[in-house]
Amino acid sequence: MKTDRSKNMSPRRISKQIQIGGVKIGGSAPIVVQSMANTDTRDIMSTIRQIKELQEYDCEIIRVAVPDMQAAQALKKIKKGIKIPLIADIHFDYRLALAALEAGVDGLRLNPGNIEDKDQIKKVVLAAKERAIPIRIGVNAGSLSKTQGKKSVVTRMVDAALEEVKLLESLDFDLIKVSLKAFDVPTTIAAYKTIAEKIPYPLHIGITEAGTPHTGVIRNSVGIGSLLYLGIGDTIRVSLTANPREEVIAGYEILKSLDLRQHGPILVSCPTCGRTEVDIIKIAQQVEVELQKIKKPIKVAVMGCVVNGPGEAKDADVGIACGKGRGILFRNGKKIGIVEEADFVKALMREVREITNPN
Amino acid sequence: MKTDRSKNMSPRRISKQIQIGGVKIGGSAPIVVQSMANTDTRDIMSTIRQIKELQEYDCEIIRVAVPDMQAAQALKKIKKGIKIPLIADIHFDYRLALAALEAGVDGLRLNPGNIEDKDQIKKVVLAAKERAIPIRIGVNAGSLSKTQGKKSVVTRMVDAALEEVKLLESLDFDLIKVSLKAFDVPTTIAAYKTIAEKIPYPLHIGITEAGTPHTGVIRNSVGIGSLLYLGIGDTIRVSLTANPREEVIAGYEILKSLDLRQHGPILVSCPTCGRTEVDIIKIAQQVEVELQKIKKPIKVAVMGCVVNGPGEAKDADVGIACGKGRGILFRNGKKIGIVEEADFVKALMREVREITNPN
Repeated sequence: MKTDRSKNMSPRRISKQIQIGGVKIGGSAPIVVQSMANTDTRDIMSTIRQIKELQEYDCEIIRVAVPDMQAAQALKKIKKGIKIPLIADIHFDYRLALAALEAGVDGLRLNPGNIEDKDQIKKVVLAAKERAIPIRIGVNAGSLSKTQGKKSVVTRMVDAALEEVKLLESLDFDLIKVSLKAFDVPTTIAAYKTIAEKIPYPLHIGITEAGTPHTGVIRNSVGIGSLLYLGIGDTIRVSLTANPREEVIAGYEILKSLDLRQHGPILVSCPTCGRTEVDIIKIAQQVEVELQKIKKPIKVAVMGCVVNGPGEAKDADVGIACGKGRGILFRNGKKIGIVEEADFVKALMREVREITNPN
Repeated sequence: MKTDRSKNMSPRRISKQIQIGGVKIGGSAPIVVQSMANTDTRDIMSTIRQIKELQEYDCEIIRVAVPDMQAAQALKKIKKGIKIPLIADIHFDYRLALAALEAGVDGLRLNPGNIEDKDQIKKVVLAAKERAIPIRIGVNAGSLSKTQGKKSVVTRMVDAALEEVKLLESLDFDLIKVSLKAFDVPTTIAAYKTIAEKIPYPLHIGITEAGTPHTGVIRNSVGIGSLLYLGIGDTIRVSLTANPREEVIAGYEILKSLDLRQHGPILVSCPTCGRTEVDIIKIAQQVEVELQKIKKPIKVAVMGCVVNGPGEAKDADVGIACGKGRGILFRNGKKIGIVEEADFVKALMREVREITNPN
């Protein structure tokens, strides 16, 4: 899973680096994929089970809600049952943050709109400082302080974050990460662009309440993708009204699309058109299912005609340009054989397995 | 379906405006959603049937492959059977372009990598000029001319387009649209950013051979979304290995996510977490299904807790913040009632219908 920022991208904003458990965030560290459990945190077994499943999908950091003291006390056992760093999501009651720190979490998320008493925040910050536990200042457009008047949402989000950053800095605390999420994508991008120039800390990026997988994946991809293209963002969380594994899968796909992380196979396949003489949709779907068994990075192309087919198939590690009845198989840019239509998927996957699992 | 570029976006690149049939592209025209039929163009009935279905999804321009003379001759009847402008996709044989013009198409797409003989191109351009039919110079990374040597893909794509632009301009032809598509997103963005500053013509944007809906939607959203955020792009085509209606639906979702077009409802829904006390995933899915019947723009929020719930629900036209057993219903930012859990979807949809269909 190497990092390889393309020369065709805007340069990455270089932030300070912090560490959540063993995971580095910011600086030149790879952009980290995180998610949030949607189980009842008090249900320790279900929460551990879900986090373990997310670990299988390479979720790198997990956050859980801490709505009450029972949830805070569950964190200790949850932490013992999982391998990835655990972040406690705190709203309203600062004592839950203190209890979460006591339970041994690797990070805290505080929403400035929901804990406004500075003395309470100070108590949390001093307890976090003692343990060297980072705090995310997690601003959300849906829960901004009402005292900020008629400024724009972007300004209110940025101001809320800056005020909290100053408070933490005044306590000599700099293990800070910041997020500024809204549902509206241009609002979110503008807020991150503004704060990116004002503070040196790593940024957690995302679009909030983005909806169901159908439309939410698009909204997240446009927002997170645009920010990453601009060089902004050190860790991402895709928000979907769905099982959180969908968030992790989509997160990696966003990073892969910008060549920011490698993570399993990449499937190139043509949209099919009136030139296509075989059922490319079906072939691509079959290959996609087969590729789910492959963990190593490899670029595979399934193409349906002679226009771009051979060109794209050559550019992939393994590719097939499918014509009527027969296809041309490519490996590392070289034609390696002619394949009968019935064997398209089988022949392609044989090459994939040979490359990814040479023994 | 109004256009409303957010003040938080980069300013739009203002291009010359062309017209494909009755549809304006470039200048300050709304960004146009187009797709490509994947039927056999020679099968006139199937092609018309597919395009009519795409019209129902508000596809605004349709392109069809023209692999041979029989396909070119089918265009006349296809054109008669549909309402949206028809573009002929031409590769290799310039005579197919002449036949397509003869058949009355509204636009041509030529791939410079596949027709390299300048005299042949001239014949097509002069015939298009006579009829005032626009030509898209459609460069594709998979079919670049081999004569360009060892320059970068971005440079080769841009140079290929510029060379063809010059040829068309030398014939006093300026009904030009340009595209520069690759599978690699940073490559594609870099190519469009470069050409955007060099020519005054509208740009057709997209990511080519992006794959199946699962991963391809993400790749398209990141690439097209980043370009649109940067102010680049006058018409979009999402490429998916799928039924083209998926391309149209995704196209509108990309534009909606950047507030560039309105198109039916927008569903805000929270990702659910350990705070959620009701099955928000199920409720959001039910609302999503109900909203498919609504054609007018409306923003609907389904939220699962008190952290951001009321804030986001208030910001929507209609919203519900769902708690255990009971939810708070909002309309135009005002609380309008308390709803029992069994009635969440029904109550929300009653308000939606009242707003979108007041009689």
